[in-house]
Amino acid sequence: MKVGIVGASGYSGLELIRMLNMHPIIDGLNFYALTSNANDISDIYPHLKSIVKGPIQKWVADQSINENHIIFLATPHGVSSEIVMNISDENVKIIDLSGDFRLKEEQKYNKWYKSNHPCFSKTSNFTYGLAEWNKEEIKTSNFIANPGCYPTASILAIAPLLKENLIVENSIIIDAKSGISGAGKGSNEVTHFTNRNDNFAAYKIHDHQHIPEIEQFLSMINPKENYITFTPHLAPMTRGIMATVYSTAREMITNEELQELYKEMYKDSYFIRIRDSIPCTKDVYGSNLCDIYPAFDERTNRITVISVIDNLIKGAAGQAIQNMNIMLGLPEETGLTFTPIFP
Amino acid sequence: MKVGIVGASGYSGLELIRMLNMHPIIDGLNFYALTSNANDISDIYPHLKSIVKGPIQKWVADQSINENHIIFLATPHGVSSEIVMNISDENVKIIDLSGDFRLKEEQKYNKWYKSNHPCFSKTSNFTYGLAEWNKEEIKTSNFIANPGCYPTASILAIAPLLKENLIVENSIIIDAKSGISGAGKGSNEVTHFTNRNDNFAAYKIHDHQHIPEIEQFLSMINPKENYITFTPHLAPMTRGIMATVYSTAREMITNEELQELYKEMYKDSYFIRIRDSIPCTKDVYGSNLCDIYPAFDERTNRITVISVIDNLIKGAAGQAIQNMNIMLGLPEETGLTFTPIFP
Amino acid sequence: MKVGIVGASGYSGLELIRMLNMHPIIDGLNFYALTSNANDISDIYPHLKSIVKGPIQKWVADQSINENHIIFLATPHGVSSEIVMNISDENVKIIDLSGDFRLKEEQKYNKWYKSNHPCFSKTSNFTYGLAEWNKEEIKTSNFIANPGCYPTASILAIAPLLKENLIVENSIIIDAKSGISGAGKGSNEVTHFTNRNDNFAAYKIHDHQHIPEIEQFLSMINPKENYITFTPHLAPMTRGIMATVYSTAREMITNEELQELYKEMYKDSYFIRIRDSIPCTKDVYGSNLCDIYPAFDERTNRITVISVIDNLIKGAAGQAIQNMNIMLGLPEETGLTFTPIFP
Amino acid sequence: MKVGIVGASGYSGLELIRMLNMHPIIDGLNFYALTSNANDISDIYPHLKSIVKGPIQKWVADQSINENHIIFLATPHGVSSEIVMNISDENVKIIDLSGDFRLKEEQKYNKWYKSNHPCFSKTSNFTYGLAEWNKEEIKTSNFIANPGCYPTASILAIAPLLKENLIVENSIIIDAKSGISGAGKGSNEVTHFTNRNDNFAAYKIHDHQHIPEIEQFLSMINPKENYITFTPHLAPMTRGIMATVYSTAREMITNEELQELYKEMYKDSYFIRIRDSIPCTKDVYGSNLCDIYPAFDERTNRITVISVIDNLIKGAAGQAIQNMNIMLGLPEETGLTFTPIFP
Repeated sequence: MKVGIVGASGYSGLELIRMLNMHPIIDGLNFYALTSNANDISDIYPHLKSIVKGPIQKWVADQSINENHIIFLATPHGVSSEIVMNISDENVKIIDLSGDFRLKEEQKYNKWYKSNHPCFSKTSNFTYGLAEWNKEEIKTSNFIANPGCYPTASILAIAPLLKENLIVENSIIIDAKSGISGAGKGSNEVTHFTNRNDNFAAYKIHDHQHIPEIEQFLSMINPKENYITFTPHLAPMTRGIMATVYSTAREMITNEELQELYKEMYKDSYFIRIRDSIPCTKDVYGSNLCDIYPAFDERTNRITVISVIDNLIKGAAGQAIQNMNIMLGLPEETGLTFTPIFP
Repeated sequence: MKVGIVGASGYSGLELIRMLNMHPIIDGLNFYALTSNANDISDIYPHLKSIVKGPIQKWVADQSINENHIIFLATPHGVSSEIVMNISDENVKIIDLSGDFRLKEEQKYNKWYKSNHPCFSKTSNFTYGLAEWNKEEIKTSNFIANPGCYPTASILAIAPLLKENLIVENSIIIDAKSGISGAGKGSNEVTHFTNRNDNFAAYKIHDHQHIPEIEQFLSMINPKENYITFTPHLAPMTRGIMATVYSTAREMITNEELQELYKEMYKDSYFIRIRDSIPCTKDVYGSNLCDIYPAFDERTNRITVISVIDNLIKGAAGQAIQNMNIMLGLPEETGLTFTPIFP
Repeated sequence: MKVGIVGASGYSGLELIRMLNMHPIIDGLNFYALTSNANDISDIYPHLKSIVKGPIQKWVADQSINENHIIFLATPHGVSSEIVMNISDENVKIIDLSGDFRLKEEQKYNKWYKSNHPCFSKTSNFTYGLAEWNKEEIKTSNFIANPGCYPTASILAIAPLLKENLIVENSIIIDAKSGISGAGKGSNEVTHFTNRNDNFAAYKIHDHQHIPEIEQFLSMINPKENYITFTPHLAPMTRGIMATVYSTAREMITNEELQELYKEMYKDSYFIRIRDSIPCTKDVYGSNLCDIYPAFDERTNRITVISVIDNLIKGAAGQAIQNMNIMLGLPEETGLTFTPIFP
Repeated sequence: MKVGIVGASGYSGLELIRMLNMHPIIDGLNFYALTSNANDISDIYPHLKSIVKGPIQKWVADQSINENHIIFLATPHGVSSEIVMNISDENVKIIDLSGDFRLKEEQKYNKWYKSNHPCFSKTSNFTYGLAEWNKEEIKTSNFIANPGCYPTASILAIAPLLKENLIVENSIIIDAKSGISGAGKGSNEVTHFTNRNDNFAAYKIHDHQHIPEIEQFLSMINPKENYITFTPHLAPMTRGIMATVYSTAREMITNEELQELYKEMYKDSYFIRIRDSIPCTKDVYGSNLCDIYPAFDERTNRITVISVIDNLIKGAAGQAIQNMNIMLGLPEETGLTFTPIFP
């Protein structure tokens, strides 16, 4: 089986390369980019020397499509839609890691992404690839909109409470913290070492494009759930996202009941671990796992849920491969059983 | 004027030494500890060599008191109360940096600090040293309970909204992130480099001893304010606290109105800067400043306020010196006009 | 095949667990410690939850031996020798990760390790496990002294020049930089986050116990090579060692000739990559690779060689498994083909 | 006294602003840049809000000169020379922080800086501003070439041994490690957080432009000293340089003698501290200090000297102000008595 990775020189592309190169059913990888190219991927990423070979080729719509059975678009929003717009072959399988095909309302896309979508009608072909909640639909889809990093951590943390109707509507506040790799490979003020090292920052308050993505999914679970508050932060570390998710309980619940509820809800989800101690981001570093810890506070009647993921894996490339596995009828964990690396 | 610092070898003590050594009206520093001692402070902290001299002496209650005009207790909770319990001289001025004399209800102290206070009645002598809100009382006090690091960042962020009665009661959620120096000088699993580096953690969910301290103060502003939710986190950095404070607005307000309100509220507070861009912790690194950024979200009717401090300065030693200045009738910023160090 | 790991709760033990758990020919892992114990390894290391199970048992000499085909001693120096001293079974295979059985002269051990070896005569049974230079001997050995982290990076960098007699005797200076995980899991001033973060330190100048280990090996290649200068440093990072190795060339050589020489010398070494650009420690993070970059300077007639390893893998656990593979007649890379993780 | 800072938006410019703003004899600061500008310095650096005010003006040769008594050029090499070339006023005092006027041989400048100097003849007007070795000449100079960061740490460490003729000629090897702020404010692959965090790198092996600067100065102390080997490295931290300097002793010397020699040599140098324990970079963080620790190894007859500086202060802006003080006849430490900030 041959796989194409568009945007191979970005961080999500890089993680796709690393993991697909070890994947048992993949026997060919092709690397593409729109603007950059390299005679060999190891010219850009010398750590891949002697492990992965291959040029980064210019992406040429249908021609490049034909060279592969599956295409991963590890391209930024705006670029993915341009690529999809120019694909005429409808039999190809595409997993898009950008935000271009996640939102179901064009107006919301244009508002939150601050740009006009060039081919919004294609969105209806795409299935939201959050396997823990959407596996059956993914199985029969050819087009996957891979969830954003923040939505993955956030939805996995809070969805069980919504599903069981345990929380007061519109009481959800998500305080999320990300490593800097989430800001991508581009060099700018945000990714400059001395701006980030030994420093903690917030950004895009009330304004992050992952807000409508989270709201859209949560409102499918409970139509009365209309809005959330979400604040992204940058922590001085390379990888990892922690979402600290607050909500108000409808009634008292014990921590033991919460543990049971979460374990039951995710009992068939290979990558979810319900924790009885508070997780940290390094507990899942280098893995496709999501660790979740729910806690009820009887003083305030609030439930705080902590979830952690590796933003480049469960938050991007790993989840994309998990979706590929499901589309291909493989166990979802195929080629993804990495033990977290600690320390 | 002679000043004694008890707990001189801890981080708060160290910052007191650095700043008091440059303070214009202090001409003598004495260092004390209960158990450790050193022939010279630079034996423990070689960066002080040639700059600060002096042994760390054993603290001997009234005798040590008599050697100083003012005593800073940079000792852990439980230790400060032991020291205060054994002081008979009532004319001494004491600024305690621990949590021992901040709470006004003994039951709450015993519950949240998980120990019995040895001399709770002394608490009534102490004034809560949050100068921006309590300056008049501090001026006439001899005993100051210096606020905790998290309460300082949290209260300064949210108190103006409470004061103006702008937010729905009991809607406050505080998500706080601290550098590791907040965990103190002790070597343990929490402070081990490889447990913290490139890692983000939460701890003491619904259980941190700063919760009742914040609630006590806020309820003095609005008696209907009964509880908050507060989650502390550890970010992989040495210094700095960011508090991201959420609340629900009673009615709509513009960001311009929020800016005005905050600026007016703190117009006489030397160390508060109301920011029109989102601050990061390095913006106040090495200074006694607290930068605050409030933002209203019309979608959710919530107000998010970001505040940042240097946890060892405005969150501990700097604020203690600010209190000393006020007690002595000096301008509060005397000896504390440090420019933040960036990068 | 069953494997025992003594010192399972330390960092080297932890990496042995992670990698042996995925090793294709291992079907049983037993964890031991002398003093600590846990009902399950995930009680100490929650990131292993659902991935690795098993108690940490108390080590009981011959009884524990009998439960395993191979024993890894991931114990500190002084402890490994105590364990070996009490083993009567001579058929067991032991791979010791400590420094206890590396030095061939008792006097040097006692001097550099500042303690008396309890069973020095056993040292003669041990083979120095630097597979790239010693593979034939390892194949037929039952007892392996796994090289130290600094010696691994240092010897792999400089040995080719000595072997080819290209450098002036006793001109070698090794300036080595290590991540903090090299200081182990113990909590102390050295491993305290705030002492290490944003800080760079040197230690044990002219006095590190890896000096005689490096000298012993190099003098086996060239008996006229008598001494080196070696300085270890601590860099504010979790993993990785860079050795910057200086020597004086006997005569001019081009960088192309150096590249050829190194490539030829290591052409059968799976884990060595001769680089034509300067490597950084992250280029080998999470892998058993050692990247090497040699450079001649015609101005000074000196050769500078840079080598990088992951100190916990090629510098400890990975190399130990490489040795196990060789002892068992397997390809040396069996179960060790990890792609470096970047970013 | 009015001072102009050209390149005010770079890191050296920023530190000049911070320190000159507190300097007792400066009563006016003007900020300049060639290409960028800002209505207020706090638009670029919000941490300066309410502390420093003033626009960044376009630099206009003689006109800007006339507005100031002293000009600091915190501009990159190539830019400083352009500025100096266009200055006709010979009465102005200029302190240049770039490498443009340090080298006394045009051929070396062109070779190592890989560009042609536009006005090399002006170099003869400039005095090398290493105050600890050149103070008398600085006193009477109007033009100062402020030393590079690496040369400062390196020369201060090794010059005493050369001066006393204690080391074998051409035996000096300098292994230097720098924080990332040394790479400047520009955003690029080198300064990208995820390329640097948890990573250690070497660069410009045998090729760094500070090599001839160090050699030039050392050969003035001992004309037989012709070359050094120098390797720069990047450590994952914001500030700080450690130079580990190796040389071969002519004859044995005790560590006590080394201590005496260094203390005597630097007895009048306010900013030099001869340490009897190994310093780390944080020991001088935020200060203009240089801590030095020399150690003799009788096994190898080599002397290892460790020196540490804050690269932005003693390695740039602080040293520049030290030079200004000397030029103005002030004590060299005026306005520079910052206590290192730890932790």
